[in-house]
Amino acid sequence: MDEPVLLTGAAGRVGRAILDGIGGQYDWRLLDREPPTDDLPSDDYVVADVTDDEEIREAMDGVGAVVHLAGDPRPEAPWDSVLENNIDGARAVFEAAVNAGIEKVAFASSNHAVGAYENDRTPDIYRTGDDYRLDGSELPRPSNLYGVSKAAGETLGRYYHDHHGLSVVCVRIGNLTKGHPPIDYERGQAMWLSYRDCAHLFDRCLRADYGYEIVYGISDNDRKYYSLERAREVLGYDPQDNSAEFDDA
Amino acid sequence: MDEPVLLTGAAGRVGRAILDGIGGQYDWRLLDREPPTDDLPSDDYVVADVTDDEEIREAMDGVGAVVHLAGDPRPEAPWDSVLENNIDGARAVFEAAVNAGIEKVAFASSNHAVGAYENDRTPDIYRTGDDYRLDGSELPRPSNLYGVSKAAGETLGRYYHDHHGLSVVCVRIGNLTKGHPPIDYERGQAMWLSYRDCAHLFDRCLRADYGYEIVYGISDNDRKYYSLERAREVLGYDPQDNSAEFDDA
Repeated sequence: MDEPVLLTGAAGRVGRAILDGIGGQYDWRLLDREPPTDDLPSDDYVVADVTDDEEIREAMDGVGAVVHLAGDPRPEAPWDSVLENNIDGARAVFEAAVNAGIEKVAFASSNHAVGAYENDRTPDIYRTGDDYRLDGSELPRPSNLYGVSKAAGETLGRYYHDHHGLSVVCVRIGNLTKGHPPIDYERGQAMWLSYRDCAHLFDRCLRADYGYEIVYGISDNDRKYYSLERAREVLGYDPQDNSAEFDDA
Repeated sequence: MDEPVLLTGAAGRVGRAILDGIGGQYDWRLLDREPPTDDLPSDDYVVADVTDDEEIREAMDGVGAVVHLAGDPRPEAPWDSVLENNIDGARAVFEAAVNAGIEKVAFASSNHAVGAYENDRTPDIYRTGDDYRLDGSELPRPSNLYGVSKAAGETLGRYYHDHHGLSVVCVRIGNLTKGHPPIDYERGQAMWLSYRDCAHLFDRCLRADYGYEIVYGISDNDRKYYSLERAREVLGYDPQDNSAEFDDA
């Protein structure tokens, strides 16, 4: 891609995983509410709030694609915050992308959009051999109001795809941790996403052709209850990590 | 039901259809932003805004069930209005219902939550003999930002059911018109909901037992692309009208 890629929420955990892995492969424009720290590239860095229509409009200027991660990332975030930062923020980003003529937005959704499917199925659902799978075609069942906000962002993406032709992929990100999967936490191991696989997955989101997709963002864990089928088929996602390889660590 | 039923948005079209049909069967507490007009019962009428947490909390006092219709009803409503009135408003109502110990909320969703399924299928989808059906298990594909807000309300209902045990039914209301179906408008005929069937459907929402449901609210039209199966099975909905009976009118 010749034009810069706008990465919102660049200073957050997912942003750092992406920059760690594929920072050198794109011309990035980083955007965050917080000013850059020493470990982030700062030559094209915008300090802005995604809920500010004017700021986000300016940040889209000349951009080729958007990875939208910005928002309140706390599963326990209060309603007023996710309403503004996550729902209104996602709408502002999709709207600005369409107005700027941008063709592609990758949206960071979350496992919390569907966390309540686990009710009454734990712990079996987290274990190797259990064949229950969510594949992205199911209705949301949020774990919390943060998950409600992420599901709303997915629906906004659907609207902007259907009515404005925007290519949108929603990535229901699992449990992103650096180096190794969560220890003594079966759920986290089942939805582990390594930094390497996270960067690769968003690289595929930027390179592949699609209309509207919901995919799961996890590594190729032996334990899993999210299907990787759509991510593999549509995006060409080819994860390298597996939380089971750390079982004896 | 011995306790009053809170009807939000009582002065709107759906509220009037309900009161026309089953006004005498419940002890209603009506709530609207607008004061009552002469044709509405005013002995238990609350002028309040559903986005006001304190007002809605007071309105729930002593209530047995809620029919939540209030919101901006315009398909072309701007984002800021549906964000506040429809999304934030639905959340306030579900939250207040849980806090008041109320067991059941019927939520007025809309055909606009799934209107984009019609893209590329019109006009066949509207015609007798076409067997394409949406059944409520499909992901939202909103027609407009109003539809996005209704889909978000459905997801909020799912959350309040899963986490707080609230019984929630979301009724994707079709084209509600009094007396006869829309003329020379196939789409409106396919999703026609008569006043009589509307009142009966919400009566069933108040009387039936369910956990969380999404149903379509249309009459038993020959033309249709919404399945009535869930409404019949779970709620005991038994519609009496059919837009085809007006074809020669």
